[in-house]
Amino acid sequence: MDDRSENHDIEVEGGNYAYERKISGILDDGSVGFQQPLLARNRKNTTSQIAIVGANTCPIESLDYEYFQAFFAFAGCNLILATAAASLCAFIAPAAAGSGIPEVKAYLNGIDAYSILAPSTLFVKIFGSIFGVAAGFVVGKEGPMVHTGACIANLLGQGGSRKYKLTWKWLRFFKNDRDRRDLITCGAAAGVAAAFRAPVGGVLFALEEAASWWRSALLWRTFFTTAVVAVVLRSLIELCRSGRCGLFGKGGLIMFDVNSGPVLYSTPDLLAVVFLGVVGGVLGSLYNYLVDKVLRTYALINERGPGFKVMLVMAVSILSSCCAFGLPWLSPCTPCPVGTEGKCPSVGRAGIYKSFQCPPNHYNDLSSLLLNTNDDAIRSLFTSRSENEFQISTLAIFFFFVYFLGIITYGIAIPSGLFIPVILAGASYGRLVGRLLGPVSQLDVGLFSLLGAASFLGGTMRMTVSLCVILLELTNNLLMLPLVMLVLLISKTVADCFNKGVYDQIVTMKGLPYMEDHAEPYMRNLVAKDVVAGPLLSFSRVEKVGVIWQALKMTSHNGFPVIDEPPFTEASELCGIALRSHLLVLLQGKRFSKQKTTFGSQILRSCKARDFAKAGLGKGLKIEDLVISGEEMEMYVDLHPITNTSPYTVLETLSLAKAAILFRQLGLRHLCVVPKTPGVSLSLPSFVFLCRDLFTFISRVFVSQRPPIVGILTRHDFMPEHVLGLYPHIDPLK
Amino acid sequence: MDDRSENHDIEVEGGNYAYERKISGILDDGSVGFQQPLLARNRKNTTSQIAIVGANTCPIESLDYEYFQAFFAFAGCNLILATAAASLCAFIAPAAAGSGIPEVKAYLNGIDAYSILAPSTLFVKIFGSIFGVAAGFVVGKEGPMVHTGACIANLLGQGGSRKYKLTWKWLRFFKNDRDRRDLITCGAAAGVAAAFRAPVGGVLFALEEAASWWRSALLWRTFFTTAVVAVVLRSLIELCRSGRCGLFGKGGLIMFDVNSGPVLYSTPDLLAVVFLGVVGGVLGSLYNYLVDKVLRTYALINERGPGFKVMLVMAVSILSSCCAFGLPWLSPCTPCPVGTEGKCPSVGRAGIYKSFQCPPNHYNDLSSLLLNTNDDAIRSLFTSRSENEFQISTLAIFFFFVYFLGIITYGIAIPSGLFIPVILAGASYGRLVGRLLGPVSQLDVGLFSLLGAASFLGGTMRMTVSLCVILLELTNNLLMLPLVMLVLLISKTVADCFNKGVYDQIVTMKGLPYMEDHAEPYMRNLVAKDVVAGPLLSFSRVEKVGVIWQALKMTSHNGFPVIDEPPFTEASELCGIALRSHLLVLLQGKRFSKQKTTFGSQILRSCKARDFAKAGLGKGLKIEDLVISGEEMEMYVDLHPITNTSPYTVLETLSLAKAAILFRQLGLRHLCVVPKTPGVSLSLPSFVFLCRDLFTFISRVFVSQRPPIVGILTRHDFMPEHVLGLYPHIDPLK
Repeated sequence: MDDRSENHDIEVEGGNYAYERKISGILDDGSVGFQQPLLARNRKNTTSQIAIVGANTCPIESLDYEYFQAFFAFAGCNLILATAAASLCAFIAPAAAGSGIPEVKAYLNGIDAYSILAPSTLFVKIFGSIFGVAAGFVVGKEGPMVHTGACIANLLGQGGSRKYKLTWKWLRFFKNDRDRRDLITCGAAAGVAAAFRAPVGGVLFALEEAASWWRSALLWRTFFTTAVVAVVLRSLIELCRSGRCGLFGKGGLIMFDVNSGPVLYSTPDLLAVVFLGVVGGVLGSLYNYLVDKVLRTYALINERGPGFKVMLVMAVSILSSCCAFGLPWLSPCTPCPVGTEGKCPSVGRAGIYKSFQCPPNHYNDLSSLLLNTNDDAIRSLFTSRSENEFQISTLAIFFFFVYFLGIITYGIAIPSGLFIPVILAGASYGRLVGRLLGPVSQLDVGLFSLLGAASFLGGTMRMTVSLCVILLELTNNLLMLPLVMLVLLISKTVADCFNKGVYDQIVTMKGLPYMEDHAEPYMRNLVAKDVVAGPLLSFSRVEKVGVIWQALKMTSHNGFPVIDEPPFTEASELCGIALRSHLLVLLQGKRFSKQKTTFGSQILRSCKARDFAKAGLGKGLKIEDLVISGEEMEMYVDLHPITNTSPYTVLETLSLAKAAILFRQLGLRHLCVVPKTPGVSLSLPSFVFLCRDLFTFISRVFVSQRPPIVGILTRHDFMPEHVLGLYPHIDPLK
Repeated sequence: MDDRSENHDIEVEGGNYAYERKISGILDDGSVGFQQPLLARNRKNTTSQIAIVGANTCPIESLDYEYFQAFFAFAGCNLILATAAASLCAFIAPAAAGSGIPEVKAYLNGIDAYSILAPSTLFVKIFGSIFGVAAGFVVGKEGPMVHTGACIANLLGQGGSRKYKLTWKWLRFFKNDRDRRDLITCGAAAGVAAAFRAPVGGVLFALEEAASWWRSALLWRTFFTTAVVAVVLRSLIELCRSGRCGLFGKGGLIMFDVNSGPVLYSTPDLLAVVFLGVVGGVLGSLYNYLVDKVLRTYALINERGPGFKVMLVMAVSILSSCCAFGLPWLSPCTPCPVGTEGKCPSVGRAGIYKSFQCPPNHYNDLSSLLLNTNDDAIRSLFTSRSENEFQISTLAIFFFFVYFLGIITYGIAIPSGLFIPVILAGASYGRLVGRLLGPVSQLDVGLFSLLGAASFLGGTMRMTVSLCVILLELTNNLLMLPLVMLVLLISKTVADCFNKGVYDQIVTMKGLPYMEDHAEPYMRNLVAKDVVAGPLLSFSRVEKVGVIWQALKMTSHNGFPVIDEPPFTEASELCGIALRSHLLVLLQGKRFSKQKTTFGSQILRSCKARDFAKAGLGKGLKIEDLVISGEEMEMYVDLHPITNTSPYTVLETLSLAKAAILFRQLGLRHLCVVPKTPGVSLSLPSFVFLCRDLFTFISRVFVSQRPPIVGILTRHDFMPEHVLGLYPHIDPLK
């Protein structure tokens, strides 16, 4: 697979000149005519079809004079692209900023926020990500691709877009919560599969990180999705093999093919790997901590308005450009390794030996990392071509550059993935450790680099199996599997001692009410009744239209208990739950009656199932859309046809921890809390023989008659803020 | 990795002689002295360290005279080994027969049968599997290794074995259902990881096939387990690299390293692969169907007694030997391929070119498959060394042999895995199709063989991701991933049209009450109350010892509702559930009182938590162990300390489908069904002004007073047999 050697086809002397002329905007065909055909015909580009998104599109490497002119061209290009990305993000879809994985994760946990997966978010995510990565930021495209996949799935899930005339009839099968959620899980898996060309990794990512509810059918559906992604990718690669697709024709399914023969290791090697994992875990959790702090700081700037957002992006862009162009001066020139004379320094986009300011037959190793696509930088770090290709000082500088610039870049208003910065930082850290531990360990520096990337990924994202498989599929080296597993486990364990995974942190920071899959310890000391909030608003089975309208108007509740009352039943009992969206449809249909009688069967006959199908996010009816006359307000409507008569219930005395687990495991939105002793609490012996006390008794009956439902628990009732707000004396750590 | 060529170091002429002498039991060192050192010194064995278990330990291949003598030696060795395995199984631990994966699956679903994971089962599983595989049956060792892993985990989970003085204090942390279940899941994952040397595949197998409840912590725990397996395996391989461990020193982490360069494919190739998948799916489901029929037939024989079991095994053993020794005569001799003159036919254990009855420079290809270890046969089929190495007729005969012998072997009283027979059958089927479609498709026959194995695995076991990763880890070829995924999906989809996966079928056939993770359609028409079985037996909070003793004696219920009654509360209400095991501990502790008063706090003080820790499977107290005097029978005991006062409850009107999902998702053993209107159902207007009707009213109150619990749902109440038995008019398919 190593055809990197083929792209140093432009001679050094001529190449520089051609590039320089190109940058200064004057392509004088007459004067450079003898070189131009070379440039046009022979120049091969090994950049993979996706990696082009990560290319710094200003090819000004190997300039060694007119430095400032080149710098301004470079920084200017970057700034324009960055401003374009930021403007899209700030003015059209603020939800498209950032990685998108936390948002997808929150959506799959049941947080139904409209903007997360809206079509505008999709548009901005795609183009913002292209501009952002092209602008030379230390950002990845993997997170945005996951978000993109989820957005496309959502668009399909709500039956296409009626606005843009993109609807299909069969998509109606997804008009319910569960299938839509499954589809979006598949979309996220497809995103990972496409981003890393890792179909199995995509399935595992969806399982381990994205999805909150998993079932065996889903495993097989995501697997199908990623299999299709793999086959399509593979077919496109085959189709483009002849080069007719330009930059998209190159590369294979395996992005960093770094096969380096059998991996052997001894005890000192294992100790080195353990050390790598421990330090990687610490640095990973520090990364999370700093990202959190930076995000909180940026939130203060960003909330001032879109203009400030764009300015912040521009500032970071200029800083990035300065670093990328300024730092290589710190690195001394290295003589070209033996055997590469004709090809070093290289000029092609994906060349590894960049000349920068160096004399002929020397290269600047730091510029090879900085002024290259992220993918090629990772590939360079992962290879074991020559141990001394990168100097220790170069690796240290590059590590600090990527580590800190990655942190301050995440959170600005552009779509920005975290995978690439973390892999880059980890790979340079790993290679650095490999060089330093060279006398102790026999392991290859390329392998150290891979293990460093694994330790950083484990330390920040805290995934295990999915990262392992993604790294496996990225690098095509099964033999290093035990070491990768070991490093991932160590770094995750170490990092878990300090803080949460980066995506969980972002979800928390954004204030999204994420339901964890375990109950908090303090919940064991509370019962369900303790946290049911507010006065209960319930409807009778046959309810006055005005009452319903008023309730919908005054509250934002999404579910209302419906109670069967005399004369329809002997005593009042719980009938079920009616959803706001269904109540709105019922009111809009104006299926009212003047008498307070049950007429549910008529309603059933006049309704169609698709009226009650779940609308697209943010699309459904609103109470403001309804026009109901004063006369109609006095009429009655039978709620029975739209009532879920079989809601999940818990007794009021159930432990809150158990209620939380039930709520989470079954993926509920409403959980009815019913009294332990509804009806009447009679103390019979005290009244039976005292007929004169009958009145007292009756009054007690009425007093002690409790409604058949205590309240409805929703997601927010389980949030620590709510519970600890109600019971401030509880120690949340106990 | 291909060092197979090294093991043809014994010359044909001499080799035959030495072998023949060895078989006849006379190793005359003097007469064969010139050959013996060759045999001892030079003979290399590429059999992997695990594959030795799969070796036919009688090395009588390439005998071309004294045929019958050889056959009897071969069949005799096999018969002795088979009888040993069968005797262990039939007389010591019948539960060790078969694959063990269905049993582990059932255990992890919550079926707590003692014998499944007992130490005796572990012992028989290990040695029975070694004998069984060595006896030349078409059985695998992978299933038994999964079962072995689960058994070891169970042994650890119940705190070691007190009987054999193997206990550790820290193991007490597993003395609860959930952690023990997790541990056994990890054990199963470790089994797969060790069997296939596929650590990630092990995790996915546990996730996809074994476990019924999954949580993110479990993912990371199984991953840790398999990482340890991988590192230990790797270390042992390194340690034995020098050959000092005998047969165990060879092989690497990747068992079938069949790298065959880049895989390119066009549309006809894809169509060929689709065809392969469809037919593989059909044959796979037919395999399941036949296995089911054979198992039912064998059940009739096996239930007659252990003697019959052993005889059945002996019959199948003789049949296997006859086939393995007789079938090669059907295959004509093939001239040795060019370039292998010195090494063909080969004599070593793992040699591919077996002479059998052929003249020099010819080999019998069928005997190369039949008279070899299963692992080597698979390796031969997967390689793409020479397309014509195996003739079409050979592949067809071998396919039918493996397919049908695999079916009739599964179910006899030996530990027998299904993976190897299915992979063998699939690989020969795939290679056969590859040979037949040679003119159409450009794909390599070795790849066809791998895809055939995938299609069979998908068609019988119906796993997707885990099989894909296991195949990936077995063969170390990431480039064929899209094709493998495609084939698995197609064959699974096709096979799902006909019947269930083989493990599910076996679980059903064994009558284990397996809870599916979805509700059956007909359950939607029933409510929880409809299936609650039998008269309800409940205890008061302070109950007479005799009543409890009687209840425990008369029923086999594992949970009893405890009801708070006057005078301790105003009305009778549900207190919670008390478990049989805890009641037994309480009775054994004799913490009784003569008065009917609450004294729970005293009991709490005198009890220790570890008294109530879950005992090992089949180890806990039994009612027969208790000695309670007549006087004590009249005393009272306060059940409050041992009552779970926060049980999950459902209203009696909850849809049975929803109750089933709640039961399954939360992993419950008991689910309380409470009445919708407990207390008193008053129809107030009818009596309020009729004081004379007070007596009528009171009697109605007493009549209409319902107990605060309707019943307890257990796993058996959700089984189709039970539900459809109660409501025979229901169509189970609607």
